Amino acid sequence: MPIGTAAVANIADLRRGYASDAFSPADVAETVLARIEARGDDHVWIATVPPDELRAAAAALARRRDRLAELPLYGVPFAVKDNIDVAGLPTTAGCPDFSYRPERTAPVVARLLDAGALLVGKTNLDQFATGLTGARSPYGSCGSVFGNDLISGGSSSGSAVAVAAGVVSFALGTDTAGSGRVPAALNGIVGVKPTRGLLSTAGVVPACRSLDCVSIFTRDVADGRTVLGVARGLSPDDPWGRGAPATSVHPRMPATLRLGVPLREDLEFFGDEGQSQRFAAGSRRVADVVADAVPVELGPLFEAGDLLYKGPWVAERLAALGDFLDSHPDSVLPVTRSVLERGYLFDAVATFRAQHRLRELQAWTARLFERVDVLVLPTIGTTYTHAQIAEEPLTRNLDLGRYTQFANLLDLAAVTVPNGFTVDGRPASLTLIGPAFSDATLIRLATEVRLEGGTTP
Amino acid sequence: MPIGTAAVANIADLRRGYASDAFSPADVAETVLARIEARGDDHVWIATVPPDELRAAAAALARRRDRLAELPLYGVPFAVKDNIDVAGLPTTAGCPDFSYRPERTAPVVARLLDAGALLVGKTNLDQFATGLTGARSPYGSCGSVFGNDLISGGSSSGSAVAVAAGVVSFALGTDTAGSGRVPAALNGIVGVKPTRGLLSTAGVVPACRSLDCVSIFTRDVADGRTVLGVARGLSPDDPWGRGAPATSVHPRMPATLRLGVPLREDLEFFGDEGQSQRFAAGSRRVADVVADAVPVELGPLFEAGDLLYKGPWVAERLAALGDFLDSHPDSVLPVTRSVLERGYLFDAVATFRAQHRLRELQAWTARLFERVDVLVLPTIGTTYTHAQIAEEPLTRNLDLGRYTQFANLLDLAAVTVPNGFTVDGRPASLTLIGPAFSDATLIRLATEVRLEGGTTP
Repeated sequence: MPIGTAAVANIADLRRGYASDAFSPADVAETVLARIEARGDDHVWIATVPPDELRAAAAALARRRDRLAELPLYGVPFAVKDNIDVAGLPTTAGCPDFSYRPERTAPVVARLLDAGALLVGKTNLDQFATGLTGARSPYGSCGSVFGNDLISGGSSSGSAVAVAAGVVSFALGTDTAGSGRVPAALNGIVGVKPTRGLLSTAGVVPACRSLDCVSIFTRDVADGRTVLGVARGLSPDDPWGRGAPATSVHPRMPATLRLGVPLREDLEFFGDEGQSQRFAAGSRRVADVVADAVPVELGPLFEAGDLLYKGPWVAERLAALGDFLDSHPDSVLPVTRSVLERGYLFDAVATFRAQHRLRELQAWTARLFERVDVLVLPTIGTTYTHAQIAEEPLTRNLDLGRYTQFANLLDLAAVTVPNGFTVDGRPASLTLIGPAFSDATLIRLATEVRLEGGTTP
Repeated sequence: MPIGTAAVANIADLRRGYASDAFSPADVAETVLARIEARGDDHVWIATVPPDELRAAAAALARRRDRLAELPLYGVPFAVKDNIDVAGLPTTAGCPDFSYRPERTAPVVARLLDAGALLVGKTNLDQFATGLTGARSPYGSCGSVFGNDLISGGSSSGSAVAVAAGVVSFALGTDTAGSGRVPAALNGIVGVKPTRGLLSTAGVVPACRSLDCVSIFTRDVADGRTVLGVARGLSPDDPWGRGAPATSVHPRMPATLRLGVPLREDLEFFGDEGQSQRFAAGSRRVADVVADAVPVELGPLFEAGDLLYKGPWVAERLAALGDFLDSHPDSVLPVTRSVLERGYLFDAVATFRAQHRLRELQAWTARLFERVDVLVLPTIGTTYTHAQIAEEPLTRNLDLGRYTQFANLLDLAAVTVPNGFTVDGRPASLTLIGPAFSDATLIRLATEVRLEGGTTP
């Protein structure tokens, strides 16, 4: 039974359908193919698995139907951001001349495939995952599923749109400065930015290697929890992996949590009254389900975030990409190039000084998370159209990262959830943030809050 | 009862004497003063507490005699390396023009004073703690207590000699590349290089701020354990402090330990057959008290160690000292200057690349410490005379750090213990090394092994 071009269901519904044999992986594969075709040239994909291969994979899964219970992602279609290796497909990182054909599938993807997930393709991104707009790709700019010329956000633009548009049930992104959260916000979906090292970054094209995370897009929080549970795990060739303490898989109950709510004067919505109202409403709703809510200042978080693009961490991107940039001066987008080349301005002394300052800010943050368990923040201050980004490509990109870019520098976990719509129909979003290894608690809280979202305003 | 110029006793003996009123803090103070005078101009001290103040401090302690049981270091004389702040005394870091008068006593020193310890003075060091010889100070070169023109080792030269010569019961040093272990080796005493962050580095002149440790010199392992127990602790103004996991204060019993013993081909004694024989004997002795001993390769440890002086971490020293170096070009010793200025050769990209490589080596080390619990290594490959150091000041300094300089980069704890003497009467030493927070286990093992040492060959 092909399900036509309706959105691919979430994981729980897919499993119910498979369990009752209401449909098969082949049916879901046809739905995915129809859905891709129906959307036409939406700039979501850099490469898709050829239809015959997708059908063959679905058929192979159907032959394992008896193992449904052991395969938590049996027949669940998913997409992978095109800076993560999948054997058999090129990895471009959004740069055609950089493209290579990996021999090995990244361990984090292999875990999903081993759990029965059905790979659909590789998604568009801001080149080298450098950018938060989705508009920095030679493969075209994704738009938000909410239309009106809104950007999709980035850098994991294609992955977020593929999920929000119902083409796949979930997608992998990466998140260094906010690339797993900003596009979730602009497309009304869930973005799980796990604790650094919880998901293997082996086989991922580095942005800032010490900060990079693989992230997860889903349409609801329950799916985020399911995929996180499958995707997490150490891999022997990943020196950045960190085993979670045994306690960290047990979420704290929301009714025991102390919530940090930003001081009003630290919030900046860039004149967007609609987003300001949505955040006030959403954060109140979070506050309602926790034990206590206390005001917290955000200054040190912003100072840490500024280190990422205004400080020497830009040079960390060059540690991986500098040689390519030097040997292929014309292969990189001018905007990407202008960002990356700032890394050459910093010397080792400046780098260590910035790292020392970061350590002080990390200590401040550790004290913050002695007072509160979770912080609630807007995901983005405002939305932008493609025209607005074209007008101010650098400063507006930075503005998009205001509430996200400090998280990995400060070793925080984050879960982004939809927070309804502004009165003029734009998506709103908030992010729950906690210390490293608070992932399960953040997901539990996000589940309890039940913020509204969805694919239509 | 003044105890003449005999060596000041160890902590346990001092406490027995105080408990039985065999002597008072005033008697011990007189012994210290007599001992300092008897040794004459030994280049151990940069500043001593004036005799009247030392006597007043001893008298104040005597009035608290009833609190002996609560004060674990009651009346125990100690010295502090002169890159650690003590209010009332200048901090020179071995550079007269850098000298300043701190307003606050470093928290780690304050903890010792609060426990009743009697501060005697500030000790000589290789300028800015940059060096492992003890011969890089404008305040003169310390010699090893074993004479024969042997260097004392550094950079904590004065602290090690003060303890070895029996002037004080213990002393604080610092240890970035081996400064708390190399001089212990050359003076036949114990050097405890705690896990990074266990002792506060607030009020310490930075060498490599992210790697610096405060270290402890004592004449026996029991005293090292006592001082470590008092000195450890977080301070609010120290972003580098790390609370130990609750389990880490409980040592593993030696009979449960797996010992890593270096492959013969990885050992380099620079032609010193005597040291080679001593290490073979000492490491056999350690192997005899543990559950199992297995061969391990050391290559990745050496590669990590090379990053410290041959890689960008030299620039970390400039992060703290660069401004002084620039504004006071003639105030710094030429040898120190030549080492520090190499930091200007590295850019931010090279720094991140080296940090990424270090992360890989850290991952290798983590796997090593899944196979073994403790590693036994020579502390130094060979001893040097002042004449030998004058001949080859840079390469021989590096050779002294061969078995020590990787420890902080790889987040390891270390305990250095005497290992007898070569047949020609030079001190030998070995170091037990374990992962972060293995301090108590290393001390327990060092206690059980009972390696011979002492102040005379």
